[in-house]
Amino acid sequence: MSHPLRLGIAGLGTVGVGVIKIVMQHGDMLRARSGRDITISAVSARSKSKDRGVDLSNFDWEDDPVALATRDDVDVYVELMGGEDGPALASVKAALNAGKHVVTANKAMLAIHGQELAELAEFKGVNLRFEAAVAGGIPIIKSLTESLAGNKITRVMGVMNGTCNYILTRMETAGLPYDEVFEEANQLGYLEADPNLDVGGIDAAHKLVLLSSIAYGTQVDFASAQLQGIQRISIVDIKHAAEMGYRIKLLGVSQMTDAGLIQTMRPCLVPALSPLGLLEGGTNMVIVEGDSVGQIVLRGAGAGEGPTASAVFGDVMDIARGINIPVFGIPAAQLTKSTPADSSGESAYYMRLNLKDKAGAMASASSALADAGISIDKMTQHSSDDNVARVLIVTHPTTGETASKAAQAIENTGVLELPPVVLKIETV
Amino acid sequence: MSHPLRLGIAGLGTVGVGVIKIVMQHGDMLRARSGRDITISAVSARSKSKDRGVDLSNFDWEDDPVALATRDDVDVYVELMGGEDGPALASVKAALNAGKHVVTANKAMLAIHGQELAELAEFKGVNLRFEAAVAGGIPIIKSLTESLAGNKITRVMGVMNGTCNYILTRMETAGLPYDEVFEEANQLGYLEADPNLDVGGIDAAHKLVLLSSIAYGTQVDFASAQLQGIQRISIVDIKHAAEMGYRIKLLGVSQMTDAGLIQTMRPCLVPALSPLGLLEGGTNMVIVEGDSVGQIVLRGAGAGEGPTASAVFGDVMDIARGINIPVFGIPAAQLTKSTPADSSGESAYYMRLNLKDKAGAMASASSALADAGISIDKMTQHSSDDNVARVLIVTHPTTGETASKAAQAIENTGVLELPPVVLKIETV
Repeated sequence: MSHPLRLGIAGLGTVGVGVIKIVMQHGDMLRARSGRDITISAVSARSKSKDRGVDLSNFDWEDDPVALATRDDVDVYVELMGGEDGPALASVKAALNAGKHVVTANKAMLAIHGQELAELAEFKGVNLRFEAAVAGGIPIIKSLTESLAGNKITRVMGVMNGTCNYILTRMETAGLPYDEVFEEANQLGYLEADPNLDVGGIDAAHKLVLLSSIAYGTQVDFASAQLQGIQRISIVDIKHAAEMGYRIKLLGVSQMTDAGLIQTMRPCLVPALSPLGLLEGGTNMVIVEGDSVGQIVLRGAGAGEGPTASAVFGDVMDIARGINIPVFGIPAAQLTKSTPADSSGESAYYMRLNLKDKAGAMASASSALADAGISIDKMTQHSSDDNVARVLIVTHPTTGETASKAAQAIENTGVLELPPVVLKIETV
Repeated sequence: MSHPLRLGIAGLGTVGVGVIKIVMQHGDMLRARSGRDITISAVSARSKSKDRGVDLSNFDWEDDPVALATRDDVDVYVELMGGEDGPALASVKAALNAGKHVVTANKAMLAIHGQELAELAEFKGVNLRFEAAVAGGIPIIKSLTESLAGNKITRVMGVMNGTCNYILTRMETAGLPYDEVFEEANQLGYLEADPNLDVGGIDAAHKLVLLSSIAYGTQVDFASAQLQGIQRISIVDIKHAAEMGYRIKLLGVSQMTDAGLIQTMRPCLVPALSPLGLLEGGTNMVIVEGDSVGQIVLRGAGAGEGPTASAVFGDVMDIARGINIPVFGIPAAQLTKSTPADSSGESAYYMRLNLKDKAGAMASASSALADAGISIDKMTQHSSDDNVARVLIVTHPTTGETASKAAQAIENTGVLELPPVVLKIETV
């Protein structure tokens, strides 16, 4: 029997509490599986007095996460505070510098500082693990880094923000407008303190760029990911998509092409009866394509106390078992800088044009589309109460660049009441 | 850079060839990911002269797999011959005794001899890995053993025989009877040399019992798994199930209850629009439920050159990276003997009764059901061309034991032309 593995946990929100519960409830099981005791030496959070439903009296308390991270009786620093910089980054650096292993759920920090932190961890010979940072309880980091290590990965896709998926599926099932469901989600506590992290696609893109790094051996590059949020998706879009056999999902796509790395996070239409289309509420899904394995689909809860704590603990158990592999699958020093590329290939696009209700508006829009070289597969027009003619279009296959240029050209004609909504139709 | 990891590969069917291709095509990638070269020292198969589409001239040839397994220049013995005993078992034992790591896709061998082999591997301090033995390219062994190591696993379910799933979905889509589709599958080379391994559910049950062992820390126990094959599923069952919103799948369920371990592999009705219901052709799916993670679903190709070679290589890369954890997640000496239990809980059952076309047959069957305490939710009766009245029944929730007893009682009345078909309706 090896000596115990001693944790220091910073951040006692639902996930931190979930991790503590696993330690408290499953001591024998964890010992059998890892060959050693897993213990908690100390914890840290903003409020010491808050009742979190677990007994913290057996653990030391540290107000300062940096102090926690560097304690002599901490082998693994578990960072669950979140935030791109600030105390999370400072304490993780302090832990690594002190030769401690780090397990974190902090996608924002890693999406921005992942390269620097990975280099530091590997220089110090310790683990920096982040299964919990991507898609909650779904074991996607380990699958990509380890199980699929014999594959050249060709594409990674995923629905990885449960809040957005909740909003979109709730709009559809309850027939409620975006603003109302957004407010509902807010009251249910589903939204981040800055809701734009969720609905703007930022949180999901943080996750996607971490997967890209492992998939292609490239340095994490959040800055060049192309983002589009769900804020402008209306119930009309959802209904029209459903009529055509599609559902709208905030979908991330990461693909390495000859031109470079494509990383997009945006609402797309996906076939309603595909695994992605059937995804409800807060459930996440990640799809990985490799040259040997073909397509693998992983599905599970993307957030919440239990699922995220499960992912944190997968990493803790790996460390307890002595597993130590490079943070992003190959040594950080060997990760290459990728060249960002635009979406390649052609696909159909969905467009919603809210035209001013005046003569010639439709003609102007149509000729702008034709000028851009886009041909129309299907088109329906609806009048609404507010003197706006709503035109819903599905194009024949075209490139993303052409679709964007056409939308811009239509907007430039001045016939639109609102900016156009342009969504890719993914065939997945 | 560590010294190379040298493989010896026994069995050069599609999977062995797939493994060789990965080594040949991805040398640089494998070196970057594992920190060392992966090489092949020697290979073995039944026929040396057969053209397999890959150049074997750089590898030594061994006629005897035992000789291959014990060569000084082999670090990892990759056993891809298959078969419960014989050369596979002999060579794996020889490899372990010689202190070689073993990677195998041999579910039959492990389902019967897993405990003995795990004890030997752990005594020798080497790896015995088998990701490729279960559900092809799906990383279920690693997910269960490592990613979910912080969970008490409560249930594992899966569709893990692609051939059966192909037969069942093909019967439905083409409207063809079992015998015809079976012959089709045979000509396509989808069936094992002994087809009963596939259609009898034996191959899938071999896989299920390996998952049970990891999930619950119990010794592999194939002998007490309850098996039912798909041979008696008719197109009528498939059509009737579809009308009610279900599909028939050969589904494995492993569950630890207070009464003991339930392991069943049998055709069941599952909701048509559930992840399991939507599974087509040779695709496999495994569902794992844990106390923290909730439900995780993994889907991918269950067989074939690429997917299975991908799984083999996941294991090879783990060994190259120095990972060594117990074969079934906890040391083999600590695996407990499980008590087999019957299916617990109640559910609805589907029954097909082919009644002799004579007065009173229906009355006898109905009263036998009533006597057994089974009440009927839905019933339809069809006359067929062959003087048989076909009665299709969905029961109200009842236990598996009661459903079986009722079916037996009906058979005992002598009114049936064929034995009854009784299928559980899983709500998943």
